[in-house]
Amino acid sequence: MSIFKTVGPIHYEGSQSDNPLAFKHYNPDETVGDRKMKDHLRFAVAYWHTFTGDGSDPFGRGTMRRPWDRYSGMDLAKKRVEAAFEFFEKLGVPFFCFHDRDIAPEGDTLRETNRNLDEIVDMIQSFMKTTGVRLLWNTAQLFHHPRYVHGAATAGNADVFAYAAAQVKKGLETAKELGGENYVFWGGREGYDTLLNTDMALELDNLARFYHMAVDYAKEIGFDGQLLIEPKPQEPTKHQYDYDVANTHAFLQKYDLLDHFKINIEANHATLAGHEFQHELRYARIHDLLGSVDANQGDTLVGWDTDEFPTNLYSTTLAMYEILKMGGFRSGGLNFDAKVRRGSFEPEDLFYAHIAGMDSFARGLKVAYRLIEDRVLDRFMEEKYNSFTQGIGRDIRSGQTDLKELEAYILDKKEIQSRSGRQEYLHSVLNQYLLNV
Amino acid sequence: MSIFKTVGPIHYEGSQSDNPLAFKHYNPDETVGDRKMKDHLRFAVAYWHTFTGDGSDPFGRGTMRRPWDRYSGMDLAKKRVEAAFEFFEKLGVPFFCFHDRDIAPEGDTLRETNRNLDEIVDMIQSFMKTTGVRLLWNTAQLFHHPRYVHGAATAGNADVFAYAAAQVKKGLETAKELGGENYVFWGGREGYDTLLNTDMALELDNLARFYHMAVDYAKEIGFDGQLLIEPKPQEPTKHQYDYDVANTHAFLQKYDLLDHFKINIEANHATLAGHEFQHELRYARIHDLLGSVDANQGDTLVGWDTDEFPTNLYSTTLAMYEILKMGGFRSGGLNFDAKVRRGSFEPEDLFYAHIAGMDSFARGLKVAYRLIEDRVLDRFMEEKYNSFTQGIGRDIRSGQTDLKELEAYILDKKEIQSRSGRQEYLHSVLNQYLLNV
Amino acid sequence: MSIFKTVGPIHYEGSQSDNPLAFKHYNPDETVGDRKMKDHLRFAVAYWHTFTGDGSDPFGRGTMRRPWDRYSGMDLAKKRVEAAFEFFEKLGVPFFCFHDRDIAPEGDTLRETNRNLDEIVDMIQSFMKTTGVRLLWNTAQLFHHPRYVHGAATAGNADVFAYAAAQVKKGLETAKELGGENYVFWGGREGYDTLLNTDMALELDNLARFYHMAVDYAKEIGFDGQLLIEPKPQEPTKHQYDYDVANTHAFLQKYDLLDHFKINIEANHATLAGHEFQHELRYARIHDLLGSVDANQGDTLVGWDTDEFPTNLYSTTLAMYEILKMGGFRSGGLNFDAKVRRGSFEPEDLFYAHIAGMDSFARGLKVAYRLIEDRVLDRFMEEKYNSFTQGIGRDIRSGQTDLKELEAYILDKKEIQSRSGRQEYLHSVLNQYLLNV
Amino acid sequence: MSIFKTVGPIHYEGSQSDNPLAFKHYNPDETVGDRKMKDHLRFAVAYWHTFTGDGSDPFGRGTMRRPWDRYSGMDLAKKRVEAAFEFFEKLGVPFFCFHDRDIAPEGDTLRETNRNLDEIVDMIQSFMKTTGVRLLWNTAQLFHHPRYVHGAATAGNADVFAYAAAQVKKGLETAKELGGENYVFWGGREGYDTLLNTDMALELDNLARFYHMAVDYAKEIGFDGQLLIEPKPQEPTKHQYDYDVANTHAFLQKYDLLDHFKINIEANHATLAGHEFQHELRYARIHDLLGSVDANQGDTLVGWDTDEFPTNLYSTTLAMYEILKMGGFRSGGLNFDAKVRRGSFEPEDLFYAHIAGMDSFARGLKVAYRLIEDRVLDRFMEEKYNSFTQGIGRDIRSGQTDLKELEAYILDKKEIQSRSGRQEYLHSVLNQYLLNV
Ligand SMILES: [Co+2]
Ligand SMILES: [Co+2]
Ligand SMILES: [Co+2]
Ligand SMILES: [Co+2]
Ligand SMILES: [Co+2]
Ligand SMILES: [Co+2]
Ligand SMILES: [Co+2]
Ligand SMILES: [Co+2]
Repeated sequence: MSIFKTVGPIHYEGSQSDNPLAFKHYNPDETVGDRKMKDHLRFAVAYWHTFTGDGSDPFGRGTMRRPWDRYSGMDLAKKRVEAAFEFFEKLGVPFFCFHDRDIAPEGDTLRETNRNLDEIVDMIQSFMKTTGVRLLWNTAQLFHHPRYVHGAATAGNADVFAYAAAQVKKGLETAKELGGENYVFWGGREGYDTLLNTDMALELDNLARFYHMAVDYAKEIGFDGQLLIEPKPQEPTKHQYDYDVANTHAFLQKYDLLDHFKINIEANHATLAGHEFQHELRYARIHDLLGSVDANQGDTLVGWDTDEFPTNLYSTTLAMYEILKMGGFRSGGLNFDAKVRRGSFEPEDLFYAHIAGMDSFARGLKVAYRLIEDRVLDRFMEEKYNSFTQGIGRDIRSGQTDLKELEAYILDKKEIQSRSGRQEYLHSVLNQYLLNV
Repeated sequence: MSIFKTVGPIHYEGSQSDNPLAFKHYNPDETVGDRKMKDHLRFAVAYWHTFTGDGSDPFGRGTMRRPWDRYSGMDLAKKRVEAAFEFFEKLGVPFFCFHDRDIAPEGDTLRETNRNLDEIVDMIQSFMKTTGVRLLWNTAQLFHHPRYVHGAATAGNADVFAYAAAQVKKGLETAKELGGENYVFWGGREGYDTLLNTDMALELDNLARFYHMAVDYAKEIGFDGQLLIEPKPQEPTKHQYDYDVANTHAFLQKYDLLDHFKINIEANHATLAGHEFQHELRYARIHDLLGSVDANQGDTLVGWDTDEFPTNLYSTTLAMYEILKMGGFRSGGLNFDAKVRRGSFEPEDLFYAHIAGMDSFARGLKVAYRLIEDRVLDRFMEEKYNSFTQGIGRDIRSGQTDLKELEAYILDKKEIQSRSGRQEYLHSVLNQYLLNV
Repeated sequence: MSIFKTVGPIHYEGSQSDNPLAFKHYNPDETVGDRKMKDHLRFAVAYWHTFTGDGSDPFGRGTMRRPWDRYSGMDLAKKRVEAAFEFFEKLGVPFFCFHDRDIAPEGDTLRETNRNLDEIVDMIQSFMKTTGVRLLWNTAQLFHHPRYVHGAATAGNADVFAYAAAQVKKGLETAKELGGENYVFWGGREGYDTLLNTDMALELDNLARFYHMAVDYAKEIGFDGQLLIEPKPQEPTKHQYDYDVANTHAFLQKYDLLDHFKINIEANHATLAGHEFQHELRYARIHDLLGSVDANQGDTLVGWDTDEFPTNLYSTTLAMYEILKMGGFRSGGLNFDAKVRRGSFEPEDLFYAHIAGMDSFARGLKVAYRLIEDRVLDRFMEEKYNSFTQGIGRDIRSGQTDLKELEAYILDKKEIQSRSGRQEYLHSVLNQYLLNV
Repeated sequence: MSIFKTVGPIHYEGSQSDNPLAFKHYNPDETVGDRKMKDHLRFAVAYWHTFTGDGSDPFGRGTMRRPWDRYSGMDLAKKRVEAAFEFFEKLGVPFFCFHDRDIAPEGDTLRETNRNLDEIVDMIQSFMKTTGVRLLWNTAQLFHHPRYVHGAATAGNADVFAYAAAQVKKGLETAKELGGENYVFWGGREGYDTLLNTDMALELDNLARFYHMAVDYAKEIGFDGQLLIEPKPQEPTKHQYDYDVANTHAFLQKYDLLDHFKINIEANHATLAGHEFQHELRYARIHDLLGSVDANQGDTLVGWDTDEFPTNLYSTTLAMYEILKMGGFRSGGLNFDAKVRRGSFEPEDLFYAHIAGMDSFARGLKVAYRLIEDRVLDRFMEEKYNSFTQGIGRDIRSGQTDLKELEAYILDKKEIQSRSGRQEYLHSVLNQYLLNV
């Protein structure tokens, strides 16, 4: 019995199709380079935005119209699971992601809450078996309940730390049970609103302790998925400790956690931190930190996390460029941490939005693949950095020189020849690939 | 023979003075806690803004009217030195800072340039002896010349790397010669304008090689001042690698440079990176990275580095709070990396501006000292984090517990008691201290 | 029977008091210039933040602990009224403000909703009589209900326009009944999320029609309070039509509404639009548009409306400077459109926060008054613009010259003498007044 | 004798060409709708960036390598004219734009300066005749010289006003002489750095007087080109009076200038003001204010005016959408107020950059034209606003109803039906048009 009655399975119809409920670029079994599109892209649906989100914002209550609106409590939770798997299948996405609190309601104690959770997890597990849809990652929601008002692992109150720790324990067990390929930490309240009341040193130490306990427990239960941290600079807190990838990198190194974590990079969090999405991906890639991606986009003219569906082809192309350059995802994937606008309140909009995102990344994949195959940027780089493959440049790279030798080398030189950076030309080339691929 | 003819030595006259050329709060020999004001604050004048800056901006040429305007070449360089030491003495600042290119003009080769530099450095050294004014830090200017268009240590061209290396070599020698207490690196061009033409991995490796060579050479010549890196997120480049303190912290750890560097934090660079000035100071302090401070302020409603003289008392108070909490400066100080507005073009404005900054930090010092002495925030913190001194909290801090134990502890708890963060109250208290001290 | 049991009436105890529940600067009956402090400041409490707000944010549910939490429906509405008037009296504020939906719950139809409203309005009216507390302004809440998802007066659907119109009709009647001194329009949804689906021309025309109907009806029922528009650039919509004061000024002129409206300026909306709070006040003042003020402050390092209680003394001083220069408020006042932080969840925090805001504005009033009395800035201006009082400058101002005459005047002049803007000196002076008053 | 020796005339070679010195989309004589591409787009080269700009930035001196570098004074000015017209012809642009100070050096008095100007204007006029290249607009540069440190028409000094007025007089005469189709005012210094020393009311009055004198003089000499104001929010001043289109609209209305001016909208100024480029175009279009366009793009992650060449196809498409909806340019055009990056210092980069911009706008034109022809968005709008064509909606639009009638209409209605805004779907459609046209 169908829940999304007006929409059937979504098929690829090619770029000229005018069927709004068809893919124009995403052709799951089409091969791009060494693997199929679906294996490059590893799309996941975010349970929270798509099945739990109601369209409320700080100035308005929910607007979404959903077939499960008339249910409540555990019935609602179950109806959402049914809807979710129908949606996954119709869309043809291989993965999904969830927070513990998206899928099941809380009880009066954590014990009761876990009981609710177990019931839904069992149901999900059985749906996963029958549909073949897999868990990209799950996570513990440590920000919505008032107990987390001052943080979870960084709260001033040890009981709060304990509660959060217990949620993560359960989360890791769930990940193990459902065969999750990763497990994510997003510390939305791990930060501060004012330094006047914050012991940053203690809070960072506690955060590290928290992560170490999680590492130990994952090992203990044999969960071998990838642990991921998702940075965000701010919102809801004024300042979040995992501000951007490099801030997180500093933290992981300091606290001897580098071997255990990679990063889950969200496009909108990148721009909120003042970085291009590609910057965060590049930084993570070259530091072997790029784990997975929250595929969305922000509005750089507004200052909050809009979590829009990703449709900007420049952004999807340059993201796929970094992912292909990494050799493709290992455990990670493209999770649509994106919500339909508050005004897109009909169930069909969920399909339109995911199709928009999937097509945009499929096109981005193809363009990026072509750019790499044709060695467009690589050839440019080779010329630009050519002087480091010989002479004094090679000595610099190999560590065989020092300031004195370099001074002697340059002291009487009259002129240094530079090369144009050709930024405008490269933008033209990017446009041409975008349109012609 | 006086250069600033209209202005005599600046004296402390107390908060009620209406003499615009007197200090209202900065009383150098007044004791605050364990040391004199002047030893807490360790003010430095920035040679570039005050003696070289001409008030030009991207849309207009210089406006500044200076007694040395009629000179040029080495004569100009020498007249500026005279003016500078007269200014330092009249203002009563104990320190100054400079880039190599501020103090002497370039020649046709680096050898000639160094010859010019040597002549001025000798002159400076003799002024330092007679006046007792000391060098807080010097640095190599690696951003103004067209050769640095694509970076210095991160340029695509090995010759540029060599040139920059040779400048740093000379800079370290100068620091040694003048007894500089620190040596600074600010990589204004170490970053990129577009990732389309940038090999970030190679560039970061080269930057680390550059720093290691500097460390080695400093050791070789026996320069034992503190090496400092000054982060800035962007401008002139779109993205600078030393984006903020934590980004720099990640870099220093990765490249095994943590033992050799501390950070020079500029207020306006903090806000350009989306952080409070106090945030950067706090982060640096608790990671033992706080070396020195570029004391200025920005306009958070505009998006470029305005380098204004610091007059916001909230900012100076909270900065001094972190510095006092660190136990005061060791090698560092408060360098006015600040320029008079383009419209403040008279020589007197240089005095007004420095007086404004010095008084603002002096007041900030007194307010911060009082806040610490009265343990206003410390007492609040003790209560807030009290649960980590006992029971389960103590176990968390001492590493004697794990997820399982924490789950057992919390699983059946009905309620967790939180405590108000009292942000509004703390702001009232801060205001009261500001006004009453 | 007291609701805020732990807090008694708040009294003025002077700047040295260490009683957190006392005023340090706000001394209502103290005279400043031609009137009492309370008559200068005309403080109002915002019903929504203080009695309806629950501390929820986009990532977390409510945290506030309120004595009325156990009530619901009309009982809750009534208990809030009791609490509100107790709060007003204990704090000693002369005014309050509300949206229709803050004070009473909605029914199934507007008729039922209005019935609920009437009952609460009657209750409020009787409290107003016994306490003497007055209504600064009320407004219709046209953004929270899903019907307003695409705007109210600018919705695509005429029924929505009609509903909004009916709410405003009732709002004007309420204003008349309660003797409101102003009536406010804030169009939180009057704007767009994307221009792809927006007919801006039609929407602006409709907005003007809406305002004209309100003007007509106010006249018809004899409501002679001031109509006010409150600009905001964005949030919740991506772009709000009343972006800033000048945008609103353009609209009012175009649609022949200038005689009927003034502006309600919120500090945090000013900074979200890229303007200083003082800028918006100044612009409004010199265009005779400054009606009233939403007294709060934002965090310029985050991109959403934080609506913090105003404690920055620079901001309060410069705001009061503009208000005094206008000759003081006529119908307007200082409405605390501010909310305690989510972490300040205890009822006492409501008092601390309002005390913080009231003291900050009281201090600002005194400093601003002193600056004006001493003609500090006025004298500076007179000198700066002196050339416009004589000769060619006077001719320019009086319209008695033209380009030809001006060219003849300047064509052979060698030099123009400019005068320093003295910005740094003026900041020193401002600090001295702030501390010494 | 060629100046740009390495580059010949640029031709259209189609989208598959891999010739970097060919157009891929701009085919000047190709017809799109009712006119040729070249007549839709009316491209202009900006003299200042392309022939005067040297690549300096606040942290570095010029990098550009130009064939005219070895000249100076009037010789330099003349060589630039030759280069410019060679460039215009090779590129095939029909228009150019300039500031008075771009084309000729200043003398000791304005009389001498004008003499220099006359000589170059004569030379330009003769080149215009032989090449057929026309003047889109010229303007007076009122921001670079120190005399304008505190503004031009808004300076505190009447002599400065006079000087600026004389420059505008000459500018209007030049416009008349060269048959300029427009004349532009950009007030880069018309604003303030701090309100502490600014009489905003006097300054705005003076600005209006200045504009009125210009209107009168244009009439007097029979210059019938369009007068344009170019808004910018800030930089170089902290706050510029012509902040955005709506701010300027308010000013024009207030000072009775609306009949005489239209707006020159720059993309990067739009985003600096927090608006989409399309927003400013739309606002101007529906208020009949859209005169001309400065075609560039900014980087929304940095806070200054980067003036990049426009290559973002979303931006060019939506800009052309507004221009086509206006019925195409009347006197205006697309002026590349854009500069090659500091690292793109070779003469060839000037060609690459303009080709990039011209192709991007040509593609944008075609996509926009298709969107309009297919009525994609228009049909969506018609449905969305359909309720305003009948019943109560029609009454609202025709002004035949009031609050009472609207209340009666809605008072007992149970439900209002809204329609999804379909933002995600519309983004998909836009992508499809972008790729398929
Ligand atoms: Co995310
Ligand atoms: Co997000
Ligand atoms: Co600095
Ligand atoms: Co700076
Ligand atoms: Co408000
Ligand atoms: Co607000
Ligand atoms: Co422009
Ligand atoms: Co620009």
